[in-house]
Amino acid sequence: MKHRIITISREFGSGGRTIGKSVAQRLHIPCYDQELIETIAEKSGFSQDYVRRTGEDTPRSGWFANALVGRSLSGASNQDYLWSIQRRTILELAQQGPCVIVGRCADAILKDQADCLTVFIHAPLAIRAKRIVQRYGETDTAPEKRLREKDRRRAAYYQFYTDLEWGAAKNFHISLDSGALGLDRCVDLIAGLY
Amino acid sequence: MKHRIITISREFGSGGRTIGKSVAQRLHIPCYDQELIETIAEKSGFSQDYVRRTGEDTPRSGWFANALVGRSLSGASNQDYLWSIQRRTILELAQQGPCVIVGRCADAILKDQADCLTVFIHAPLAIRAKRIVQRYGETDTAPEKRLREKDRRRAAYYQFYTDLEWGAAKNFHISLDSGALGLDRCVDLIAGLY
Repeated sequence: MKHRIITISREFGSGGRTIGKSVAQRLHIPCYDQELIETIAEKSGFSQDYVRRTGEDTPRSGWFANALVGRSLSGASNQDYLWSIQRRTILELAQQGPCVIVGRCADAILKDQADCLTVFIHAPLAIRAKRIVQRYGETDTAPEKRLREKDRRRAAYYQFYTDLEWGAAKNFHISLDSGALGLDRCVDLIAGLY
Repeated sequence: MKHRIITISREFGSGGRTIGKSVAQRLHIPCYDQELIETIAEKSGFSQDYVRRTGEDTPRSGWFANALVGRSLSGASNQDYLWSIQRRTILELAQQGPCVIVGRCADAILKDQADCLTVFIHAPLAIRAKRIVQRYGETDTAPEKRLREKDRRRAAYYQFYTDLEWGAAKNFHISLDSGALGLDRCVDLIAGLY
């Protein structure tokens, strides 16, 4: 195989991003996460913050209203435009050489690439709740409620743009419970499959 | 940990049963599949064939009708009775010592057992179709159609009795695509986690 790509899709708070970075370090290949956001922001003209917030989760409120109101006369919304840039950027990156790509529906975008290993990382709610409080601090909203909302928004985005079911094992070569197995074990398993 | 149980849930035709047997051989622990059916048949008074057909898939037709018509005055159907025997048998087996248990919702029945590794094996439809023709021969019905019907019946049974979504990655510690990874690699990964 000419190129070897690993896509890491993950539930918010599951440690998927950390796992992705560690796998890339272990394999001495780039990990596209923040860099991917920068490239998409540059190409699309949107701010990095907008790309980060909007490129894999539906907006915090009014997704359906937004999907209609935000559309231009051609029928495309800002989200649709961002999706097309994001999709093209991921396809281009996959042509450049081996890498790890975290999130942004890369698994679905690259699923017909024979040289792509698709990974899904998930964890029980309580473990993810503890993790997001450690990483992002407390807010007025209980972490479990923040997670449920984020899960809903991520699933809606994924299903809308890929027409695939979010979190279904069949969409991935390997799915791992990082809470039960631990982050290090997940890194070992994924790197071992490469 | 006192006991170590591995449950293997699997899509029909994914090779999950073969993987389960190989894992058990590798680890020198028993694999409950045919023996489980024999025990449940003995305890319930149903034939082995009935247990095999009815203990993890809804009946071939009239599931909803059957669920109502087959119920006794107490509200329990033959399937409900079989489920209760099956559930108790699996809980008892898990108390006896380390083992691999294939199918029969063992993952859901044992999910609160801390010493249980839950595995889901799946594979693309085309690979499963080839496999069931090799193993069970051709029939008048196309293998893809047989698989889709079996998938529907297994999902319906699982969701009815466990209240969990069939095939959702989050219900398992590890989910593997045996078509992409190969059966041997799946055995290595599972045995390596034990």
